[in-house]
Amino acid sequence: MNIEQLKLQYKSELLNNVVPFWLSHSLDKEYGGYFTCLDAEGKVFDTDKFIWLQARQVWMFATLYNKVEEKKEWLDCAEHGANFLLNHGHNGDFDWYFSVDRQGAPLVDPYNIFSYTFAAMAFSALSLAANNERYGEIAKATFEKVLARKDNPKDRWDKSAGGRSLKNFALPMILCNLSLEMEHLVDPDFLKATIDTCIDEVMEVFYRPELGLVLENVTQDNQLSDTFDGRLLNPGHAIEAMWFIMDLGKRLDRPELIEKAKNIALEMVEYGWDEKYGGIFYFMDRKGAPLQQLEWDQKLWWVHLETLICMLKGYDFTGDERCKSWFEKVHEYSWKHFAGDAGGEWWGYLNRQGEVLHQLKGGKWKGCFHVPRALFQCWQVLEQLEKK
Amino acid sequence: MNIEQLKLQYKSELLNNVVPFWLSHSLDKEYGGYFTCLDAEGKVFDTDKFIWLQARQVWMFATLYNKVEEKKEWLDCAEHGANFLLNHGHNGDFDWYFSVDRQGAPLVDPYNIFSYTFAAMAFSALSLAANNERYGEIAKATFEKVLARKDNPKDRWDKSAGGRSLKNFALPMILCNLSLEMEHLVDPDFLKATIDTCIDEVMEVFYRPELGLVLENVTQDNQLSDTFDGRLLNPGHAIEAMWFIMDLGKRLDRPELIEKAKNIALEMVEYGWDEKYGGIFYFMDRKGAPLQQLEWDQKLWWVHLETLICMLKGYDFTGDERCKSWFEKVHEYSWKHFAGDAGGEWWGYLNRQGEVLHQLKGGKWKGCFHVPRALFQCWQVLEQLEKK
Repeated sequence: MNIEQLKLQYKSELLNNVVPFWLSHSLDKEYGGYFTCLDAEGKVFDTDKFIWLQARQVWMFATLYNKVEEKKEWLDCAEHGANFLLNHGHNGDFDWYFSVDRQGAPLVDPYNIFSYTFAAMAFSALSLAANNERYGEIAKATFEKVLARKDNPKDRWDKSAGGRSLKNFALPMILCNLSLEMEHLVDPDFLKATIDTCIDEVMEVFYRPELGLVLENVTQDNQLSDTFDGRLLNPGHAIEAMWFIMDLGKRLDRPELIEKAKNIALEMVEYGWDEKYGGIFYFMDRKGAPLQQLEWDQKLWWVHLETLICMLKGYDFTGDERCKSWFEKVHEYSWKHFAGDAGGEWWGYLNRQGEVLHQLKGGKWKGCFHVPRALFQCWQVLEQLEKK
Repeated sequence: MNIEQLKLQYKSELLNNVVPFWLSHSLDKEYGGYFTCLDAEGKVFDTDKFIWLQARQVWMFATLYNKVEEKKEWLDCAEHGANFLLNHGHNGDFDWYFSVDRQGAPLVDPYNIFSYTFAAMAFSALSLAANNERYGEIAKATFEKVLARKDNPKDRWDKSAGGRSLKNFALPMILCNLSLEMEHLVDPDFLKATIDTCIDEVMEVFYRPELGLVLENVTQDNQLSDTFDGRLLNPGHAIEAMWFIMDLGKRLDRPELIEKAKNIALEMVEYGWDEKYGGIFYFMDRKGAPLQQLEWDQKLWWVHLETLICMLKGYDFTGDERCKSWFEKVHEYSWKHFAGDAGGEWWGYLNRQGEVLHQLKGGKWKGCFHVPRALFQCWQVLEQLEKK
């Protein structure tokens, strides 16, 4: 593996292809915010604005400004989105809608807690970039709302009738990442307690050593549930969480935590890999039962990009050669199928065979986030590796 | 097309393969009701009970009893499900849950109006089969609930934040069918008014002659909406509606309505057919934009079975040879891919290429309904054609 060449490849793809794609195609100069529904050529095919994707793009450009270079264009782009979010993204009390229309009229209620987590992440990064305390206050207010809803994230939009109550992996997993993003804004003791709880949930509750698997849902008292949701696996989700945990392990100087996360990630990528066509499945069932998710066998961009980050960090932090091999294998698959002939932003959705299934660069669930974040992360880790 | 041979093929598949499959595998003799999550061999892989699927199976067996033969086994099977529905399917006031667990504990709230429509249909058919007025009263009470929720079917589970309000095709479409099913229970004048409204909605609002397409969603004032939902097409849904309308046209002696429905069905099947791999797409976008639905290109059993019914009725009622050709084409595809080597109940989900995607005979969205209903309907129409 030629580390220098790889580093240049990831860096150049980020700075010369992907970031320019979003800068040229996504800004709504008339009404503010970003278009995320962009077709193969970058043309807008729908103008609805999904709050979590708006927030993710704010975070991305603020982070590029904070960590790569203080380019005015990047900060302007982040603030362009932040203004729209402040004016139209919430109900006046930092309850963040799921979506609004092009002009900013609310479309879908603040039912989804991930609109909040990514708003917190966006304003946290932007408070650093713009050196603006008001943004920090918004991030904190939103973070408090997330923590208040932590034990009942679906809030009044919960349709469960009481006969079964499961808890879901996504929120503690996102909080592992969000905590580090909020570090400069939150009381250290409080933050440490939050982080400890989340690490414990992810590593001791949702990871089941007897199965060697990270589950998406367990019962409220931390037991396995032999139900559709209780059998569900999302390998990409688990692998993404493992690099969040490795970052926390680094930050907290806990090498045993890094080692454990790296091993779990290896178990999940081996489990999730499609031996027949290559790529990592989107959803699986831990007992091999048929899935509710009709799209289970598709190959999604973020699954593969998060795996690249995770395997590279695993290799950098622990030297495990299996991480290097998996990085190489997923690198080859991803550049061939997701970057392929895309130009600019990558393709998002492939069928099981690896063919492009949706002719889009962005949509309701895909914005300016996983591709540039992964390119940035991989570039940074490769730079570390180069120095060794 | 050898009509006699086809008639025997559909009849035999219904009575010798599909009905026995459900009778042997789906009855929960311990807790009542039916298992619908059955794998390739008919083994139960999940025990949750989805109310609309419970109700559809009650309807199916009551209808076989009413229209094919007064077999005690069929009536017993219908009443077996009806008892479970009465004891566990609703909140005591005929608000029908979406799902309950094996023992009947409520899992998901009565958010979905189609739990109600199929409960009404089930108890209506069963009131005839069992000659039991109480079942008729339950059907009527449930039908009233459906009509009360007609203009706001999502009720308190609606997450829309007010910025856009679309109305959906599914409810008026189902009411076209349900009305005929309820005919023996409802005041004729009231029923006529309901039917007229639904026919008008389906044929004059959701069908757009300028596009030659039936839409899934339009604005409250019957305009096109250039949004994800407003562009959405579901060809199978539209084609299913057209045989409901043809049945109403027959019942109301309105040949011009039959003719129009037949022509719309032909437009939709031509639009929905996959020229590359055969079969009818699940979802499409009327402007060709990328879809939100990741599963858009899959080939679903019910889409093809409803098309068989519709084309056969179109041919029987109008003599249009294009209906005959489409029936033959979809017949060939369906028997090859959905019946194929399945044995008993048919496969439900194919990928675009026509390969089985989910190794299941029933699940959360597939029960004892579309396959046996279509086999029965086709058999009946073929019998009419044979007499000509």
